[in-house]
Amino acid sequence: MTDEADTLTLGVLGGMGPAATLEFLARLQAYTPADRDQDHIRVLADINPRVPDRNTPGSDAGAVLAEMAGALRGAGAEVLAMPCNTAHAHADLIQRASGLPLIDMIDLGAQAAQESGALRAGVLGTKGALRLYREYLAARGMGLVSLPPGRQEAFMEALYRIKAGDDGADVKRIMKGFADELVKAGAEVLVAGCTEVPLVLDPEDVKVDLADPGDLLARRCVAVCLGYEPTPVFVG
Amino acid sequence: MTDEADTLTLGVLGGMGPAATLEFLARLQAYTPADRDQDHIRVLADINPRVPDRNTPGSDAGAVLAEMAGALRGAGAEVLAMPCNTAHAHADLIQRASGLPLIDMIDLGAQAAQESGALRAGVLGTKGALRLYREYLAARGMGLVSLPPGRQEAFMEALYRIKAGDDGADVKRIMKGFADELVKAGAEVLVAGCTEVPLVLDPEDVKVDLADPGDLLARRCVAVCLGYEPTPVFVG
Repeated sequence: MTDEADTLTLGVLGGMGPAATLEFLARLQAYTPADRDQDHIRVLADINPRVPDRNTPGSDAGAVLAEMAGALRGAGAEVLAMPCNTAHAHADLIQRASGLPLIDMIDLGAQAAQESGALRAGVLGTKGALRLYREYLAARGMGLVSLPPGRQEAFMEALYRIKAGDDGADVKRIMKGFADELVKAGAEVLVAGCTEVPLVLDPEDVKVDLADPGDLLARRCVAVCLGYEPTPVFVG
Repeated sequence: MTDEADTLTLGVLGGMGPAATLEFLARLQAYTPADRDQDHIRVLADINPRVPDRNTPGSDAGAVLAEMAGALRGAGAEVLAMPCNTAHAHADLIQRASGLPLIDMIDLGAQAAQESGALRAGVLGTKGALRLYREYLAARGMGLVSLPPGRQEAFMEALYRIKAGDDGADVKRIMKGFADELVKAGAEVLVAGCTEVPLVLDPEDVKVDLADPGDLLARRCVAVCLGYEPTPVFVG
């Protein structure tokens, strides 16, 4: 199968949240064509719950992520991925600190939204993630549809329930409700802009296409590490 | 919940095989009392499929594992775990190379077998794992029951099928057959002595107690990292 010498070692900045990181690692394995252990790509994962909450103003998440990225390089990582949309606000710092390219999941989400043919993308994400998607979508000539302030707060409450391990029918119903609101507000495509969202929301739950940047990130990582696609270059 | 300053960072020597490592990481999360991301323990995992096959004579798995352990320490690991029974043949080398204690899953499996009250434990594992369990069980005054040579080869074929992603009804039936044979041969307790075994064999499939060292390892790691149990000390 794969020639070890040609494959890249993936460093994963994880733990935001821990369950979403495991889902990402599982998809990496599922998308790797493998008949034996040795066919899989090497993954160095730092599942670090000590990353300060990305949604608390003034938190020092960037410095912690930069340190993690440097340590992953030291341990052998050659390219980085971070299954957390919100933390991509620190993407440049992570790449400068480690000297490694980070495969950008916000860009993958925005690209999928554009390829759906839509002009307005509804994004379910934290305020920080919405800022990133607004910028990336605008660069593709697209508009962002987000929840009104009060509903955004309710969305955050749902996220913290999922992070606490709740993936029951009630939280699924609530998440589907947020998705429906965005479609009613004009979204022609939806982006699961927080890695907790796809843990409770399936494509069949929504009336338009649902882009899952975490899933797209896993597929891209496998393709890059196996040499099917070029490694992104960071120009800092 | 937990005070970050009191928790230890766990280094995981993984990838043997990749699916078993993910199962182990999932159990670590499941056994951690957590209401938010920050309550989880920090886990640095090297999911390294480039570890030479532990079942190929003359393979240099020990040197690769020692190097991985050293790099995990460099990245911040304070205590190590390795969800692969067979690779525990290199436990001393790993601890000497890294200077970190390794939580010993063979010992956890042997202890559970003894606590069941049995005198003869049937172990489903590779030849290398059987050697380890024979020694650890003997130290507890217990005997080991293993498959006859021809059946051991068939067991290895089943393991490689699981590693290739096959966890279907056929391989489950075959694994249950091996378990039944050990019980017929006098085993009063069974040990899932290879991390692939519990991926297809459940406790309700067998007529005696089934000890799962990978599950016990996950529980012990959480207890050690949260400070509920003392950190093992390596005397090299």
